[in-house]
Amino acid sequence: MSIEQIKNAIRDIPDFPKKGILFKDITPVLQDADLFRETIHLLCEPYRNSTIHAVAGVESRGFIFGGAMALQLGCAFVPIRKPGKLPYKTYREEYELEYGSDALEIHRDAVAGGQRIVLVDDLLATGGTALAAAKLIENCGAEVAGIRFFIELSFLNGLEKLDRYKVDSLIRF
Amino acid sequence: MSIEQIKNAIRDIPDFPKKGILFKDITPVLQDADLFRETIHLLCEPYRNSTIHAVAGVESRGFIFGGAMALQLGCAFVPIRKPGKLPYKTYREEYELEYGSDALEIHRDAVAGGQRIVLVDDLLATGGTALAAAKLIENCGAEVAGIRFFIELSFLNGLEKLDRYKVDSLIRF
Repeated sequence: MSIEQIKNAIRDIPDFPKKGILFKDITPVLQDADLFRETIHLLCEPYRNSTIHAVAGVESRGFIFGGAMALQLGCAFVPIRKPGKLPYKTYREEYELEYGSDALEIHRDAVAGGQRIVLVDDLLATGGTALAAAKLIENCGAEVAGIRFFIELSFLNGLEKLDRYKVDSLIRF
Repeated sequence: MSIEQIKNAIRDIPDFPKKGILFKDITPVLQDADLFRETIHLLCEPYRNSTIHAVAGVESRGFIFGGAMALQLGCAFVPIRKPGKLPYKTYREEYELEYGSDALEIHRDAVAGGQRIVLVDDLLATGGTALAAAKLIENCGAEVAGIRFFIELSFLNGLEKLDRYKVDSLIRF
């Protein structure tokens, strides 16, 4: 079981969600028990010897990795969601899209001052979503101990936007 | 750590998502490392001594429990999603809502004939969503070994709609 085997299982879907985009479909990795276990193991690797209070996952695919990582690291899980989905008092961060803007929310009591949080999402593209999510964690007074991606699309230079943070990606294209 | 402690951590939010609905907010359970670990442990309990090939989670909160359960049971994870989110060839099932209808999709190659799948979601209300999700698993030729809910709202009689299946809920209101 190696990173190469995980990478080879990722499936290219042309023209999804729209013409000209080559979508990286991660479901073949999830639906293979060995690849899924090894992926979670490797995603947790950088944090195994440090104090992490929670893994925060970005809706929706970040929830799959985030829940499993929280279990493996023995810490809490915090959902970061699209506007209107979280029922309690929230902080909100807007971020730019190619056309228009979107936003993410976190519960105001989701993490506490002084806590060290790992942020996880499936894909680093331009970095806008992750930057908004990181700011939400900081709005609560907590520290972003690291940002973890399953896949990084290096040619989109998302790392530049996240240069204040410790960012690790498992697989690069 | 007991079911009672988990139940006590669930937070009532009045009038969410709309007036007159008392929403059960599960995030306080997720954001406590001990409660989260115990919840995943208990959700896996009925399947620990049987052969389970995959946990299928319903978008989005089902992904949090589902990913962690798949890791703990040593099996695969299969996402069941809202229409248009899965990039590959899908099966689709529509289901009735209070007003109008909605639909769920599964990748056609997500599970294989003869496999035994546990379906998980955070909440059993009227049972419509879970029934659609169970049918999707059967459309792929696989068997629904069980349906697992974190919370069951017993007064909505969702169990009736799912009477063909082995259904277990961790917490009842």
